[in-house]
Amino acid sequence: MLENLKNNDTINRKIQFVEKIMIKNVKSRHKNVQDMLTEMIHSGGKRLRPLFLLLSAEFGQNKTESLYEAAAGMEMIHMATLIHDDIIDEASLRRGTVTAQSRFGKDYAVFMGDFLMNRSYLMLNGKVLAPEVRQIQHIMECLFYGEMLQYNGRFDRKKTVSQYIRIAANKTASLFALSFFLGAKISECEESICKALKRTGYYFGISFQILDDLLDFSSRESDLGKNIQKDIHMGFYTLPMIFAAKQNPEIWGLIQDSRFDELQQCIRAAGGFRKAAELGEQYLEKANSELAELPDIEAKKIILHALQDMKNALQEFS
Amino acid sequence: MLENLKNNDTINRKIQFVEKIMIKNVKSRHKNVQDMLTEMIHSGGKRLRPLFLLLSAEFGQNKTESLYEAAAGMEMIHMATLIHDDIIDEASLRRGTVTAQSRFGKDYAVFMGDFLMNRSYLMLNGKVLAPEVRQIQHIMECLFYGEMLQYNGRFDRKKTVSQYIRIAANKTASLFALSFFLGAKISECEESICKALKRTGYYFGISFQILDDLLDFSSRESDLGKNIQKDIHMGFYTLPMIFAAKQNPEIWGLIQDSRFDELQQCIRAAGGFRKAAELGEQYLEKANSELAELPDIEAKKIILHALQDMKNALQEFS
Repeated sequence: MLENLKNNDTINRKIQFVEKIMIKNVKSRHKNVQDMLTEMIHSGGKRLRPLFLLLSAEFGQNKTESLYEAAAGMEMIHMATLIHDDIIDEASLRRGTVTAQSRFGKDYAVFMGDFLMNRSYLMLNGKVLAPEVRQIQHIMECLFYGEMLQYNGRFDRKKTVSQYIRIAANKTASLFALSFFLGAKISECEESICKALKRTGYYFGISFQILDDLLDFSSRESDLGKNIQKDIHMGFYTLPMIFAAKQNPEIWGLIQDSRFDELQQCIRAAGGFRKAAELGEQYLEKANSELAELPDIEAKKIILHALQDMKNALQEFS
Repeated sequence: MLENLKNNDTINRKIQFVEKIMIKNVKSRHKNVQDMLTEMIHSGGKRLRPLFLLLSAEFGQNKTESLYEAAAGMEMIHMATLIHDDIIDEASLRRGTVTAQSRFGKDYAVFMGDFLMNRSYLMLNGKVLAPEVRQIQHIMECLFYGEMLQYNGRFDRKKTVSQYIRIAANKTASLFALSFFLGAKISECEESICKALKRTGYYFGISFQILDDLLDFSSRESDLGKNIQKDIHMGFYTLPMIFAAKQNPEIWGLIQDSRFDELQQCIRAAGGFRKAAELGEQYLEKANSELAELPDIEAKKIILHALQDMKNALQEFS
């Protein structure tokens, strides 16, 4: 997803600068932690949150260096929550990359997440205006809240689409919304533009989570990946399963008996993948509408392009 | 320890007010989390950090309500770190009380710690001056760093007294130092008084950790408590053992063979408890010296009383 962004030199340079700031900000007298976090940063990531923050900032006039620090802060918060989430999920792989907890141990993962979260605050606190700091901390709470909702809802066969969306809104969309918003705010966009970009991020975030959950079932792997099997065992049921179960409750039997190949076929036959993809596309449409009113600058084109890429990726499931 | 503080009505009223603020500040739309944290608050604690913050504030003139919020914030940070530490220690009991992780599960404990840490920031951010917020976050890092040092040093039979002190300084003394400091700072004490109180808190914190580690071996229980056995199994060697091992390396054999009763006797015979207690007393002396220069107000008498209580508790081991 978002493949074509990788070939944009300007964007790549900006992201490299953000990564530099991240690496600077995980420097610590505790070399061990510094090394682990530096390694995590080097091991990459899509850097969507900083990217969108910087693109959002293009709508305003005040391009200060603090934009890059805020962008780095967004990615660091994201990394911190990933580290803590992986402790809960007992994940050993995150889309092919070894997770912090399996690399360094669960114990270290707790501290590393705490350390990184604290460094993000420390960094943002100096660079962002006071009201925004409060908002950042409110969003942090949404992130935890979303994870807790998800954890509470394990094994819930009656989980509804709106419950799923509520989880996605909190655990994923909130940070995208904040990233879009902060870029606009720091670069001093007018309030209406800040809000429209915030909503763009929110809608993007929901469809991003839907796509993410779809990709876990990706047909590129001959059988379901180990992590998704573990997720299912742990009771994390995502949108394709929720849609499919409405149509065909037999999927619960397949889950119970760990018949994962059949499960995948069953979800497909019951339209689970297609319906999830369609809902994802609807959220992308909402994001598109928010952007429609904004000035036609280059950054807007790039964001629209990213939305189109997402749409293409979703359509592979429909 | 600090038994006589419990009978001070003024102090009790103040601490009840702090607890009220804590309870107000864990209110959440996520009722589950709110209930768990409220229960944790109700289940008590010595509240030393808020207490010392408020006592410190008596040296200044500016007694605002924000003192109580800062006091509540200190205790909430403390609780958050306890929750996360218990995940690492796999502790099921914390001095007789069931820990968050065994009560609610490891997964919840990660979120609850994150949530509480975030709420502490949120609360302190509005109430404390900007430079102090940075200092709070620096101290947070000391707390993680201390825990990491401790974790790194597991099974290290060559652990020195100064390594132990370094861990205690970071994981414990730093937050006491901050509590003393913030009280003085918010109530607008002069810089020299702020610094003297900060050092008082630091020295108190070190001796507090030493006493805490001694109490784990407390003779009130006929055999070593399960948690200390687990700690030893997990490789957490504390000051009495470090001193004893210098004198008699046989203790490593006793540890390896899980002969805990003999271990305790061996530590005693090798002077491990006594030497640890003496070092604790030395730090109390330093705290006393810092206070000597300060005005003789009622709060100072209470702090001195607390130091005397600590000294008595330590002397039971010497």
